[in-house]
Formats: sequence, C-alpha cells, structure tokens
Amino acid sequence: MAGRPIHRKAKGYRWEGVEELPYKEDGRALFKSITRQVLFADPDLAGELRYFEMSPGGFSTLERHEHMHAVLVLRGRGHCLVGDEVKPVETRDLVTVPAMTWHQFRATRGEPLGFLCMVNASRDKPQLPSAEDLAELERHAGIAAFLRNQPES
Amino acid sequence: MAGRPIHRKAKGYRWEGVEELPYKEDGRALFKSITRQVLFADPDLAGELRYFEMSPGGFSTLERHEHMHAVLVLRGRGHCLVGDEVKPVETRDLVTVPAMTWHQFRATRGEPLGFLCMVNASRDKPQLPSAEDLAELERHAGIAAFLRNQPES
Repeated sequence: MAGRPIHRKAKGYRWEGVEELPYKEDGRALFKSITRQVLFADPDLAGELRYFEMSPGGFSTLERHEHMHAVLVLRGRGHCLVGDEVKPVETRDLVTVPAMTWHQFRATRGEPLGFLCMVNASRDKPQLPSAEDLAELERHAGIAAFLRNQPES
Repeated sequence: MAGRPIHRKAKGYRWEGVEELPYKEDGRALFKSITRQVLFADPDLAGELRYFEMSPGGFSTLERHEHMHAVLVLRGRGHCLVGDEVKPVETRDLVTVPAMTWHQFRATRGEPLGFLCMVNASRDKPQLPSAEDLAELERHAGIAAFLRNQPES
C-alpha cells in the first residue's frame, strides 16, 4: 500500500521512510537543535505519534495550546517544564501536558534528549508566551534557572 | 490533578501509577505470557497508548478488527504476522496494522518482546479467526511455521 508501508526499520533514532523535518514552521518561535519525525499519521488514526530529538543544549519551544500532549522519553535525559514544575526526565519516563499549560523540554545533561509525543490529529495551534507571560514564569527561581538551561536539580 | 499525574517514572518496563493488567478479558482468545499497561488514556485524547510485553515464547492473540494499530517496538526482538507477511522485528521498528488484517506478535528470540501500540480511543472489538480462517492462513508455509513459534527467518 503506497504511503502506508507495514514494516519500517530504525537506524538508531532515524526511521526508514520517515522524513526528518524542521521542528517548526512558525518563524517567531524560539527553539534550538531539535528535529521532528512523524512516525504515524494516518486518516484511520485519531491520534498522531511523533518523535522529537534535541542535541545537547537544544530545547523545544516554550508554548501552550488547548490540545494535550502524551509524552514518553525514548532517548537520553534532560529536563522539562510543565506548568510551574521543572523536573529531570530520563528514558521511558511519561510526561502528561494538560490543556493550556506552558511546557518546554531541554537537553540539559550533555546528551541528546528524544521523546515520543502522542497528540490528537485534529488540534489547535500553539500559543507563544507574551513578555508578561515570560516575566510571570521567571518569578519562579526554578523556572528562571531552567530557562537559562541551568536547572537546579 | 487526581488520576492525571504529570510525571510518571519507569522502573525498567513498569510504569509508576500504571497497573499491569491481564492482556485480555475475552476467555476464548488464545494468548500466552503477555501483559498490558495503559500508559495514556484520557478524555482529552482521541488515541490511547498501551505497552504490551511478552516473555520469551509468549504471543499476543491472532486477531483482526476495523481499527488500526500503530506499533513501535520498545524492547527486545521477535516476529510479527501482519496480513500474509511474517517479519522479524526488533527495538524501535515500526509496524502498521491496517483495518481488518490478521496480526500477531511473538517473542520468538528467547528474549522479551515489548511494544507500544497506539489505537483510537473509540474502536471496535477484535475478531478471532474461525477454523476456516486458520486453515487458510496455514496454507502459507511461512505463516504455519510462525504459528508453531518456529519462524523461518
């Protein structure tokens, strides 16, 4: 079946027949050293499964949206912010990002950080923080440290 | 938020706050040495993410259904049948199971085989093969060998 092969092998963390995409098209969004591969997106599936990988020091966009993220860390270690909580994450950890919750992943440990992310196929566009939102987040010392790529723990 | 923790750690391939469930409730279904963990199932998600693991020699039920499976092998190696194709699978391989396609996973390599499976939250019940369906499948020598847990390659 064209466009829907049954078997796709991996070479490390790159998948056969899966394009390695730029992380985002939104030119206003801040991010660094991160790639995106869409592993499953099919008209018969209500969800999509994507793989994002950051090089050491890389980070995803700080954003929020109505749709929820269901994340499983597949490679390496790092940190993530969800709401007002900064936590270390490592391979196989699960992270739930509820609706309209600020979140960001960072490869803070000198190694790549890769994660699977399940989302609804039908979803809203992410919102970026305003200067006021950022100032509000940075009032938490732990979040400010995380945003400087120097998490406290 | 009760029932929806943000962070859940893994100990090997068991997740914090995730129950290890019997594979199936359908008493008629044939399977062996396989467990199920539901990693993500949430009213805000259109999909579910489950983790299934077979011990060496274990296998999932041979079945088909209208809903589609999107599979990523997370642990070990084994074989799978999809339609009339038997293939070896290993960690990080992707497997797509289209609608109404007979399929089964088997831990044929003397090691555990664990995989993530994304499905639609709303889905039909699996169908089991009739004696005629089984006879038809076993006409393929490769499938007959697989069903005896002795795949050809």
